Amino acid sequence: MQFHDRAVLPRGFRCASRNCGLKPTAKDLALFVSDVDAVAAAVFTRSHFPGAPIVLGRETIKGGRLRAIVANSKVSNVATGARGVDNARRMAQAAATEIGSTADRVLVSSTGVIGVSLPIAIIERGLKGMSADLGDDPIAGAEGIMTTDTYAKALSVGVGKATITWVAKGSGMIEPNMATMLAYIFTDAAIAAPALDAMLRRAVDLSFNMLSVDSDTSTSDTCAILANGLAGAVDEAAFADALRAGCIRMTEMLARDGEGATRLLRTTVTGAKNDLEARRVAKSIVNSPLIKTMVFGADPNVGRILMAVGKCVDCTIVPGSTDASINGVPVVSGGLRLDFDEAAVRETLGAGVVDIEVALGVGSARATAYGCDLTKGYIDENAAYYSS
Amino acid sequence: MQFHDRAVLPRGFRCASRNCGLKPTAKDLALFVSDVDAVAAAVFTRSHFPGAPIVLGRETIKGGRLRAIVANSKVSNVATGARGVDNARRMAQAAATEIGSTADRVLVSSTGVIGVSLPIAIIERGLKGMSADLGDDPIAGAEGIMTTDTYAKALSVGVGKATITWVAKGSGMIEPNMATMLAYIFTDAAIAAPALDAMLRRAVDLSFNMLSVDSDTSTSDTCAILANGLAGAVDEAAFADALRAGCIRMTEMLARDGEGATRLLRTTVTGAKNDLEARRVAKSIVNSPLIKTMVFGADPNVGRILMAVGKCVDCTIVPGSTDASINGVPVVSGGLRLDFDEAAVRETLGAGVVDIEVALGVGSARATAYGCDLTKGYIDENAAYYSS
Repeated sequence: MQFHDRAVLPRGFRCASRNCGLKPTAKDLALFVSDVDAVAAAVFTRSHFPGAPIVLGRETIKGGRLRAIVANSKVSNVATGARGVDNARRMAQAAATEIGSTADRVLVSSTGVIGVSLPIAIIERGLKGMSADLGDDPIAGAEGIMTTDTYAKALSVGVGKATITWVAKGSGMIEPNMATMLAYIFTDAAIAAPALDAMLRRAVDLSFNMLSVDSDTSTSDTCAILANGLAGAVDEAAFADALRAGCIRMTEMLARDGEGATRLLRTTVTGAKNDLEARRVAKSIVNSPLIKTMVFGADPNVGRILMAVGKCVDCTIVPGSTDASINGVPVVSGGLRLDFDEAAVRETLGAGVVDIEVALGVGSARATAYGCDLTKGYIDENAAYYSS
Repeated sequence: MQFHDRAVLPRGFRCASRNCGLKPTAKDLALFVSDVDAVAAAVFTRSHFPGAPIVLGRETIKGGRLRAIVANSKVSNVATGARGVDNARRMAQAAATEIGSTADRVLVSSTGVIGVSLPIAIIERGLKGMSADLGDDPIAGAEGIMTTDTYAKALSVGVGKATITWVAKGSGMIEPNMATMLAYIFTDAAIAAPALDAMLRRAVDLSFNMLSVDSDTSTSDTCAILANGLAGAVDEAAFADALRAGCIRMTEMLARDGEGATRLLRTTVTGAKNDLEARRVAKSIVNSPLIKTMVFGADPNVGRILMAVGKCVDCTIVPGSTDASINGVPVVSGGLRLDFDEAAVRETLGAGVVDIEVALGVGSARATAYGCDLTKGYIDENAAYYSS
């Protein structure tokens, strides 16, 4: 898949972000708008404590149509009760008024600290006049949803005459169901709502739902797609392929920029009994603190791969048929550590992308999970997140 | 339960440890011996890649009788194939020869790096003459099984005329099934084998199996109990109580001394639908990197407690009936963050023991899990474990 060198919004989409006063100076409010109503689909966190925007968003997305997404950072509006939902509704209404639409066409996201009341008056004031700032650079919108991300993330790809563009944030409290992040996908392709929903779910399942920075699941996860149809119909198979490829690419960007991360850790499990077991083992490896610190330290302590596979006690594992490699260098064969070139493995563990591949040899299912190394930076960011 | 100020071995038990040359200078070989055959029971790791000593130990324990335990640190003899099992057998035989018993009465443990061949000749030489060193201080034996533990761990309690003594090591790759550690329990009480086995399993289930330092499960976990009967019969209910209390106390010692840890983190879940769900939620909290870093930083970011409960997507959680407290200070009520005294919560999060209690309000089951904070020390220890 050939992504554009520089991300652009598809035709008919514009966005902007601002500092409205939730943070001292950084941007904390983002607005994404389609000129016309777009067919829309979305998936949300499976947490038992979904934020107020998720409660409202599930209701909104039932309509299958969106004109805009409004998102703030710093305060997540989670564990805030009925008043939190009222505040999310006010935020949708304020955005709708600003762009000349109705609140039921606006998806709301909030990300940041849990359990703090949303300063809705500040957000309402901040939205006033924001439509004048709208432009076609997706990075401008991405900046407004950043929390601990180190850079604003956007990505574009063409499908026939249409474009698909992703705008997303990570980067902690990141594990599936869905992958603890905000990801917005915009396209000018014309796609019917049921097909769009099905394609989104399939793509998310193979990408964001296989992402884990720290095994913690956010209360605010949202992935939404808006298709405004301005480019007309496209080949649906090609669109689905591009959608999946872009979701995977964005997943890798989020993993690589996980809190404190210095490397992208990608684990592929092949030869599993079934999809569920392939996914579980891949996740077990990508989530293991001992694997993550091994990668951080470029320490060829490859026995830890067997440890992380072995602890999947409910999966079908045959020790004697388990092989493993790191960036293509075989390190385990038939469940035994090979006498490999340690200097070579140490060097490849120091690469920007570390691929751990495990062949289970018991079936034909495969899965890939996406994560990062575990560093002192993660601890720095999370030992004083609330206070700073 | 009143533990002795200073741990002692029960009558008829002696131990010693030595440096045999696996490590540069630190003790790396330990021997625990009963003067007479003891009734014995043991539980082992559930990993799919159990070490060679586990493979042999499962066979040995079937006999229900032990005279000795021999353990080495530095090399775990895991992922070493048939030769690894041969080496474990040679280690049992060497210990048996040294103490005048037979190999089928000797339990073997190895802990350390995975996937490296056991230097059996060095261990055989090291065991020669070791019976002359045997003494009654359990700390002398505990020293020989340390890896990254910061101190040697032993504990004693009296039950009637009998004594129960625990000797254990932690401290990374610590999560249940069973709790990634070596724990040996010695008693001079006379207990029949089936009762001993049942009591051990019940006690482990509430203690070591609820311990998690980093959610990684070792390939070498072993918990064994030897009862040599020299103090005669005891009240079995009192013995079971003491066994459980000591296992929990030792679990807390191991958690508090987890790699890099500065605090004991204890999470108690009450009002759960059933035991399994109580255990799952308690483990989810104790394993959450965002909870662990919050505790490390004494940062009152208590919304993370709801996050860690909420991600247990398969458990019965009713947000509106969920309460939480930290060291007795209520921080969440009915799923909403309370307006608590932040300075007080910050101060109590800085205590040596942090108790997070969550009342789910949906049933009557309860569980307690044991862990520690996540610090840069953990990363230091694990980013170069193999290399150092």
